[in-house]
Amino acid sequence: MQRLHVTSQTIRYDVVVGRGAWRALREFGRHGYTSIFLLTEGGLWNHWHGPFLRASGLKAARAVFVPAGEASKSVRMVERVAGKLLTQGADRRSLLVAFGGGVIGDLGGFVASTYMRGIDSVQVPTTVVAQVDSAIGGKTAVNVGAMKNLIGTFYPPRLVVADPVVLSTLDDRAFRSGFFEVVKHAVLSGSRLFNEVERSLDTLRPDRAALLGPLLARAARVKVDVVSRDEKEAGLRRVLNLGHTFGHALEEATGYRRFLHGEAVGWGLLAAVRLAELLGLLGPAESQRIAALIRRLGPLPPVRDLKAERVLRLLPRDKKAVGGRIHWVLPERIGKVRIVADVPSFAVRAAFRDVQRADRHD
Amino acid sequence: MQRLHVTSQTIRYDVVVGRGAWRALREFGRHGYTSIFLLTEGGLWNHWHGPFLRASGLKAARAVFVPAGEASKSVRMVERVAGKLLTQGADRRSLLVAFGGGVIGDLGGFVASTYMRGIDSVQVPTTVVAQVDSAIGGKTAVNVGAMKNLIGTFYPPRLVVADPVVLSTLDDRAFRSGFFEVVKHAVLSGSRLFNEVERSLDTLRPDRAALLGPLLARAARVKVDVVSRDEKEAGLRRVLNLGHTFGHALEEATGYRRFLHGEAVGWGLLAAVRLAELLGLLGPAESQRIAALIRRLGPLPPVRDLKAERVLRLLPRDKKAVGGRIHWVLPERIGKVRIVADVPSFAVRAAFRDVQRADRHD
Repeated sequence: MQRLHVTSQTIRYDVVVGRGAWRALREFGRHGYTSIFLLTEGGLWNHWHGPFLRASGLKAARAVFVPAGEASKSVRMVERVAGKLLTQGADRRSLLVAFGGGVIGDLGGFVASTYMRGIDSVQVPTTVVAQVDSAIGGKTAVNVGAMKNLIGTFYPPRLVVADPVVLSTLDDRAFRSGFFEVVKHAVLSGSRLFNEVERSLDTLRPDRAALLGPLLARAARVKVDVVSRDEKEAGLRRVLNLGHTFGHALEEATGYRRFLHGEAVGWGLLAAVRLAELLGLLGPAESQRIAALIRRLGPLPPVRDLKAERVLRLLPRDKKAVGGRIHWVLPERIGKVRIVADVPSFAVRAAFRDVQRADRHD
Repeated sequence: MQRLHVTSQTIRYDVVVGRGAWRALREFGRHGYTSIFLLTEGGLWNHWHGPFLRASGLKAARAVFVPAGEASKSVRMVERVAGKLLTQGADRRSLLVAFGGGVIGDLGGFVASTYMRGIDSVQVPTTVVAQVDSAIGGKTAVNVGAMKNLIGTFYPPRLVVADPVVLSTLDDRAFRSGFFEVVKHAVLSGSRLFNEVERSLDTLRPDRAALLGPLLARAARVKVDVVSRDEKEAGLRRVLNLGHTFGHALEEATGYRRFLHGEAVGWGLLAAVRLAELLGLLGPAESQRIAALIRRLGPLPPVRDLKAERVLRLLPRDKKAVGGRIHWVLPERIGKVRIVADVPSFAVRAAFRDVQRADRHD
């Protein structure tokens, strides 16, 4: 079990990752709150409430349920959850615990940041992506129509506790998809973490998830380090967007139905790696090494049938684009990326076509 | 024209009050934004867009309209405005100018604080209450069902510009209602401002509004001073709640239809003054002087027909109550208030009944 420290502009908080992490809630000052609420979804809670409540000691927490799935990340759900909190007596000194994956974390974080102008929150991430990435750093959001994360806040939680034991009820595909984000962190971080992901590939099974504590902690540390230095995405934090520019376009082009988020990031990493190689930023050996790791994590749903022009048209809608430009995060080697603002569109097109071609030959 | 400075935890911004205040937007760094949007309502904008655009120089701003009235302070409207901003190309470097009264200011501030996780905003308040109070300090909010301001943020604007010329299109009742908040500030501030309000009473007419710049600036300074010392209502800022505990209960008891907000605050001040007197905190001479000023501001919609028990039951729902208690802000003299947590309910009941009785004899 590792305890990491995020230093945000306003507060400092811990990210506890590994077996037994939930127990960190026992030392957390929960008695300072008038009441504790827990946002989650029924299936997950049904399975895990026993172990979680025993480990955390949060027996008095009242659960508020939202349906599983992306549709719950809506403005309407914010209103509904806030209404439930009010009815059950939540006040400005209540605590909201978000127990779930990215949807619950983003929604719960947003509700906490706005309920009575902000109450404390704790993140208990239950997916790989949430444990190493989305639950850390205080970005919260909900969707507006087709536009993901259009409304949100920067609002750090008071504590993040990530126990890999909870990953054991993920299905194999959901479980594996999270490791594309781990690969992203490894490319950002350097060869030590990258080597470790390569070595760990065979243990990547949900029923052995609890063994993954140290690997997940190291991947989480990458995020912790970045957001401690750049809480609000003024600059450095943008490196976390590696693989997400294409990833978002692919998700949008397929109506968010074909790919799990991590899988889209997997494709996005392949495209970014290829683009970096085409631009002469990344050598072929490292390019192949990264691509090989992503392929071994596979299989990925296809991209070969997608209309390239449509995917490319969706790229500029990435909201990280300021004034319409795209800031590409491209690897120069394992452990180093560069942000490039003026990538010619023919290179982007060529990179994506190469990725599609490779998909055809699989 | 007065330029005041708010020092918030994160940024410092100016509050410019008086004739010609809109011109301060010319020196504001508007060229640093990719685009400028202006949130307002049609009737108001119809009347004032010419003078405002000439004075401010914001000719390129695109207007986004919401219906006038409290119903626009909703989660649904946040979603709609965000969707309009997106369609019209607003990005993270866009500026949102809120041109209107409390509803536009609260809604616009909330949208700005959450659109793409926060864009810059400028407040251009157009009512008395907004100019001296609600546009200053960075509190934003929308309502959820019957619960006012349940969802909101603390998010300071970059600039506040309050020109009293815009008050001239208010009807007499709306205009006068704002001065109950000015009286509140005078009670908080001391005899200098209080004397000035007493002296100015006869000039309180919308068609002479432009003369009021100095008085409004002094009233605004009270808010500026309080929020500079306590941005997030940890303690001191609660004094601004003077008159609002009963005020909110009265608004809620009448379904927000009978009283303008300022009028409810007028009654709330009378009740707070009477309660302070009953508790022996405030002497009878000062009590009568405050009450007399409120009465001279004159006529208030009746409270004599309201069921006292119902109003009293609505008191604890004030969200300033932590764990269900009410923190009463009670004057000790003009220029000094005290926060009292344990006021016996019989005293509260007696104070409200006295106010009702006085209303009957008017």
